[in-house]
Amino acid sequence: MIMDNFKVTPWEVSGTIDYDKLIRQFGATKITDQLKARMSKAAGNDPHHMLQRDFFFSHRDLDLALNDHEKGKGFFLYTGRGPSKGMHIGHLIPLMFTKWLQDAFKVNLYIEITDDEKFLFRREYDWKEVQKNAYDNILDIAAVGFDPDRTFIFKDSEYIKNVYPLLMRTARKITGSTVKAVFGFDDSTNIGLSFYPAYQVIPAFFEQKRCLIPCAIDQDPYWKIQRDVAEGLGFVKAAAVHCKFLPPLQGITGKMSSSAGSETAILLTDDEKTVKNKINKYAFSGGQSTVEEHRRMGGNPDIDVSYQWLKILFEPDDSKLKKIHDDYKSGKMLTGELKAVLIEKINAFLKEHREARKKAEKDVDKFMYSGKLAKEMWERTYE
Amino acid sequence: MIMDNFKVTPWEVSGTIDYDKLIRQFGATKITDQLKARMSKAAGNDPHHMLQRDFFFSHRDLDLALNDHEKGKGFFLYTGRGPSKGMHIGHLIPLMFTKWLQDAFKVNLYIEITDDEKFLFRREYDWKEVQKNAYDNILDIAAVGFDPDRTFIFKDSEYIKNVYPLLMRTARKITGSTVKAVFGFDDSTNIGLSFYPAYQVIPAFFEQKRCLIPCAIDQDPYWKIQRDVAEGLGFVKAAAVHCKFLPPLQGITGKMSSSAGSETAILLTDDEKTVKNKINKYAFSGGQSTVEEHRRMGGNPDIDVSYQWLKILFEPDDSKLKKIHDDYKSGKMLTGELKAVLIEKINAFLKEHREARKKAEKDVDKFMYSGKLAKEMWERTYE
Repeated sequence: MIMDNFKVTPWEVSGTIDYDKLIRQFGATKITDQLKARMSKAAGNDPHHMLQRDFFFSHRDLDLALNDHEKGKGFFLYTGRGPSKGMHIGHLIPLMFTKWLQDAFKVNLYIEITDDEKFLFRREYDWKEVQKNAYDNILDIAAVGFDPDRTFIFKDSEYIKNVYPLLMRTARKITGSTVKAVFGFDDSTNIGLSFYPAYQVIPAFFEQKRCLIPCAIDQDPYWKIQRDVAEGLGFVKAAAVHCKFLPPLQGITGKMSSSAGSETAILLTDDEKTVKNKINKYAFSGGQSTVEEHRRMGGNPDIDVSYQWLKILFEPDDSKLKKIHDDYKSGKMLTGELKAVLIEKINAFLKEHREARKKAEKDVDKFMYSGKLAKEMWERTYE
Repeated sequence: MIMDNFKVTPWEVSGTIDYDKLIRQFGATKITDQLKARMSKAAGNDPHHMLQRDFFFSHRDLDLALNDHEKGKGFFLYTGRGPSKGMHIGHLIPLMFTKWLQDAFKVNLYIEITDDEKFLFRREYDWKEVQKNAYDNILDIAAVGFDPDRTFIFKDSEYIKNVYPLLMRTARKITGSTVKAVFGFDDSTNIGLSFYPAYQVIPAFFEQKRCLIPCAIDQDPYWKIQRDVAEGLGFVKAAAVHCKFLPPLQGITGKMSSSAGSETAILLTDDEKTVKNKINKYAFSGGQSTVEEHRRMGGNPDIDVSYQWLKILFEPDDSKLKKIHDDYKSGKMLTGELKAVLIEKINAFLKEHREARKKAEKDVDKFMYSGKLAKEMWERTYE
């Protein structure tokens, strides 16, 4: 989707994103307070702050997925990741929300590692490098703590044989015009990349139920294609729930780089000192230029990246968040103090993540091969 | 390749084909008498009549493959088949010539069964039907009598995982423009079919040697692509040896239908009576309209389909063929007599083929899974 002031495609996000405009252009639907309330109730009255605070803000057929759940038909989850050299904190967001959904609804989850797509898109990568990144990313994903018997993590290159007939059926229904229009491909695009969207559609056909896809909104074009071909292939149109992008450190109106530079993001491998330095040095502040001015005029949490990160990721407690908001806005809390709160939160989060990642090393086999769902999936061929 | 009076693409052959023009347009090279002599000598002074009689008439780098053979580097063979509902006699030609090459040079042979391509091209086929046809065709192929320890027959859908990384590397080097220009695809082509040429290129990379591909000339566009990308991927440019098309029964200037109707071809399943009826009823004759005229003016073997079939396929003995040619031309041999010779030859051939096909049922496993080469191939992954 290329708009006047911003661009959102699966491979590039830039400019100041107008999310309302994006919803209209994609033909998605804003999540209403009523739908939020339904979700929270269905999830056992345990709402997720990313939904409550409109970070997950848009959807397709989320209401129908809830209907299916309520009727006992159920649904399943699908999300994915294009393996990169090191993940940053923003990459975990759809995964964390997905974990909440899995825990709340006790459903199967499929996680596609798109090693092929990453290789096809990035001419500078060699295959071994992508595989190394894939394994590294899978450890970070496994660390999020999904149910090992209800989760199947697979690499496209490894699972290809099991889906190949269905992949051919799907590809036969998608023309070159469609992928040009939807993804902005042209005749200079390599034939691998033009073909790839067919594969990203496939996991939404893994069960004869509605698939719910938690993802950043830039992935929506794929689900548009899935929804166009699903019924003709004998499957259900996928539902999706879309999140916004985590603002980069440099500022919420700044440019989001797809290959997140180490200065715009907190990497999952950053140590305590690095986190402290990055936040103090780069996190765009909504505060005033001197302490005196700040005490007098207060800060602006709406444009303060540290506050936004707390809101989106690190302070799920509404009353604590409100106090920070009010104190910062009134000038009672200084930028340095706000940053100190965030630094502590991030470091605690990363410490826990690294421990979970360590433990996940032995769970990876369950997610990929030996867990209940994984085992079933390896015995299955999709025609 | 679409010319003024004929069209030759991997999916359509029509019109009166000017083979010299085709060679020039494809940028291939005519096989000279000198090269024929080299081939026969290298093959142990056992020439093949299809080569001697210019049915295999064009090549790319066949001389270099011979050089490699003479230097002890060797080469390997690759051919393939898009599975169809029943094979006809013409389909066996490249396979019979390939068997001769394998026997003469004692080399490995890879036979790609392009179930994916057939499914992608033919919207009316379902996957199961293509698989059924594939198994049926594989039996006919195995019946040709290849070396079970030096031959690997594989279906694209089955071997996909083993080649997927290399397939991605290859696809990354081929643009949409290229497949449009080479195959006449356009934006209404489905993304599976546009992607498929990458897979047909892959078996030419199975060994770090020169690959020699015996095939009908309509397949040449694929080798053009292989030759464009091979060296950049660290492989050798493929060599090819091209045959003409077996004329359909209705006449050597007639239209060759890709889905050979049962009236234009002899199917491998045709019984003796059917063969007799088809030849007598449909085989275009170069004879005169009455016996008297024929005795006086003689027949024209150059346009007589029965004679051409004997020349191409069924009468390898040069002196016997010459006698038929001269007797028919002089009017000594009548059309009915010529047809009777062909009918007997075809029925003897089909009887032998059916017996070989029966025996081949137990060899299929060797070709596909358990023979020496097949076993090695299943343990291999191409990156």
